Amino acid sequence: MKKVFFVLFLSASLMVNSQVSDNDVIKNIYQNALTSYVAYNHLNELCTKAPGRLVGSKESELALELLMNQLSAIQTDTCYLQNYFTDSWRCVSQAEAIVIQNGKKEKLNVVNLGLSVSTPAKGICADVVEVHSMKQLDSLGIAKIQGKIVFFNRPMDNAKLTTFQAYGGAIDQRAIGAAKAAQYGAVGVIVRSIATENDDFPHTGVSHYQKGVKEIPNLSISTNDANKLSRNILENSHTKIRIKSDTETLKSVRTANIIAEIKGSVHPENVILIGAHTDAWFNTPGAHDDGAGCMQMMDVLRIFNDLHIKPLNTIRLVLFMDEEMYQSGANEYATFAKKENKKHIACIESDGGAGLPLGFSIDAADSTVSSVRKLSEVLKEFGVFVVDKGYGGVDIEPLKEYGFPLIGLETNSQRYFEYHHSANDTFDKVSRREMQLGTASIASFVYLIDKYGL
Amino acid sequence: MKKVFFVLFLSASLMVNSQVSDNDVIKNIYQNALTSYVAYNHLNELCTKAPGRLVGSKESELALELLMNQLSAIQTDTCYLQNYFTDSWRCVSQAEAIVIQNGKKEKLNVVNLGLSVSTPAKGICADVVEVHSMKQLDSLGIAKIQGKIVFFNRPMDNAKLTTFQAYGGAIDQRAIGAAKAAQYGAVGVIVRSIATENDDFPHTGVSHYQKGVKEIPNLSISTNDANKLSRNILENSHTKIRIKSDTETLKSVRTANIIAEIKGSVHPENVILIGAHTDAWFNTPGAHDDGAGCMQMMDVLRIFNDLHIKPLNTIRLVLFMDEEMYQSGANEYATFAKKENKKHIACIESDGGAGLPLGFSIDAADSTVSSVRKLSEVLKEFGVFVVDKGYGGVDIEPLKEYGFPLIGLETNSQRYFEYHHSANDTFDKVSRREMQLGTASIASFVYLIDKYGL
Repeated sequence: MKKVFFVLFLSASLMVNSQVSDNDVIKNIYQNALTSYVAYNHLNELCTKAPGRLVGSKESELALELLMNQLSAIQTDTCYLQNYFTDSWRCVSQAEAIVIQNGKKEKLNVVNLGLSVSTPAKGICADVVEVHSMKQLDSLGIAKIQGKIVFFNRPMDNAKLTTFQAYGGAIDQRAIGAAKAAQYGAVGVIVRSIATENDDFPHTGVSHYQKGVKEIPNLSISTNDANKLSRNILENSHTKIRIKSDTETLKSVRTANIIAEIKGSVHPENVILIGAHTDAWFNTPGAHDDGAGCMQMMDVLRIFNDLHIKPLNTIRLVLFMDEEMYQSGANEYATFAKKENKKHIACIESDGGAGLPLGFSIDAADSTVSSVRKLSEVLKEFGVFVVDKGYGGVDIEPLKEYGFPLIGLETNSQRYFEYHHSANDTFDKVSRREMQLGTASIASFVYLIDKYGL
Repeated sequence: MKKVFFVLFLSASLMVNSQVSDNDVIKNIYQNALTSYVAYNHLNELCTKAPGRLVGSKESELALELLMNQLSAIQTDTCYLQNYFTDSWRCVSQAEAIVIQNGKKEKLNVVNLGLSVSTPAKGICADVVEVHSMKQLDSLGIAKIQGKIVFFNRPMDNAKLTTFQAYGGAIDQRAIGAAKAAQYGAVGVIVRSIATENDDFPHTGVSHYQKGVKEIPNLSISTNDANKLSRNILENSHTKIRIKSDTETLKSVRTANIIAEIKGSVHPENVILIGAHTDAWFNTPGAHDDGAGCMQMMDVLRIFNDLHIKPLNTIRLVLFMDEEMYQSGANEYATFAKKENKKHIACIESDGGAGLPLGFSIDAADSTVSSVRKLSEVLKEFGVFVVDKGYGGVDIEPLKEYGFPLIGLETNSQRYFEYHHSANDTFDKVSRREMQLGTASIASFVYLIDKYGL
């Protein structure tokens, strides 16, 4: 590509006053975001110094310290830790799996699924049964499942236009596979990583046991090894697997959400919440999920300060702890918000990866969706193409019952499930410009909501 | 990110007949593209076996062979090499640059700019002068420039919303820097890589000398080393650089465009051209630029066959040689098209990298832009958001004078100038799903143009 489009992008004064149009303010926001390296460098620091920052881990404490330190460079009216206690879970050592066929042993790329129980110290060795659906599991029943390790191997459906649609079609295996298999007497479960492409990274994620059903060890296997294992089983029906897992639950660990505010100059009692989550799975630097989200939301405050935008309402940053396992941070905040009883004009979350922003997904009444659509018209030329009714976000979800509008940043998710919950979610996978376009679209959107309401 | 949107994406029959709606055909096209690995695997092969496939090189011959072989698996009515002769240029050995300051020598990351002349075998050593604009160069004049190496160091303007806007503001240094500096007696030129981020990759690209002006050696330096060199100069005004370059021009090499067609069932005399370029700079696998474009366009033919779509008009694939230096392939095809005298309903090019497709850029009359906009309405739900008047593409450009509508695939270019014309443009930087969404949007668009005209 050699020739270019010479499109003028008028530079505007940085001073924000009543004479300055919304378009000028928004241009300034985008220019500031795109030329800043603050958030990007901070993300590098977070991923390098505090990977695997699962709630209750040393890394999560380090992350809180580091984020508070990064925030201290931004002028805010309040900035504090919302401390609380919660249970947690951790891997004591790395999970292992070995396939045994015709006396040959081969190691498989696996990790524990979140909340998995341990195997005995020597592991569990059993025949493996491959299944592709819960229906198939049901039809195999106790007769074929008892004493076996169940291998859930339904791939994400790549025919889906967005990866989140495909995620929806695969997630049951990870979320309830172990609980279902245990009902038929399975002794362990291996789940194909929920990932769009074929590679060697096992992807973890939370799984839930069922009350009254035996809790069995529950691993995730890389897509390449899932394909290989499936071929092995096809070639030899007597395929055994030995799995080893050593995990523990932690009781009542002390942890925290981070809250920081720029108080409203006219209505300090009204809140616009911008949030993301601090924690990341034990096996990943968590660059896209959700280090980048934290950086974007912190950077919104930096940009407001830099451009001397004085909000009418309070802009409140909340960096939630423990999105991945128990949503304890989200629940803690929701309890606080109920007591506090302040109106939240909007709750905005960034937790879909730092890909190119495409718009907003609104979990609110139709009339609110229409308001957002109208408000976002001026953002079209900046690439905010899509404003649709849809899901807001995990951490803001508990605020729905208070009637607050929930809004999720929609980003290009085509590569997201190459990274998600795996060691592949590294800093270099984040584009500074794409992340900062997300920052700018949130900051511009907050500016508009603050000025015009919803 | 844990919860998901359960959006249904109805699967439709693959059979294309008059009872099947356009929407069903388009869904089938997207599903086929997203679940296929053919184009992706072929791209891997091209990047691995024929990197640096500059016109006239052995690698370019290998690329032609390889692409013809890949095409042979797709049923077409014609598939042939359009042979022709052209001059070319190559690096005999890798360019070198050493900065010398206070007796200390340090190697810099450089490559030749395209068409650069050689230095004498022992190199050229001279004081270096940093400039940021042609105006500054003019003001320094012969007095300050004669006998010096000029270092053009104006960065891309990251404040611009798209990287192509920023490219437009930086490219003069690479394109005419050497010609301008030579007018003031400079003995060599080093140009800051046209790249959005700070890294160690030197990015090449074509530069042009001016008739009657001495041709001086012309290198590109990585952005990190440009920053370092600039600091060196600031600290010590007597900074010398030794540059070495060994290049040669090649006279009348035999090369070719690749042409393949599915003949129209009703109007075989009318052509819808889909094109990309085969060649890539000497220093790069050329994954985004433009290996991916070639793969997308070949895959459009595969999809038409797979889905039994019989076009009314002839779909003609043209893989142009030599986009990067002389556009000899584009000119060869244009000469052929003039003689052939067949109506081209549309000429569509993919040469902006395989990022997420966002729409089409139309170089045609306003009425044609309106037609495309109307036709593309049904593609909105598939992510074709933007249809604007704009640039079509380098290789289809010579067809403009025949009155043919030129159309460029618009993609997300935020990361493009991290890769462009550098060793960083590797296969792993291409997302299979993003590339295939581009393929699907072109195939769907061709289907619509074929059926409804423009």
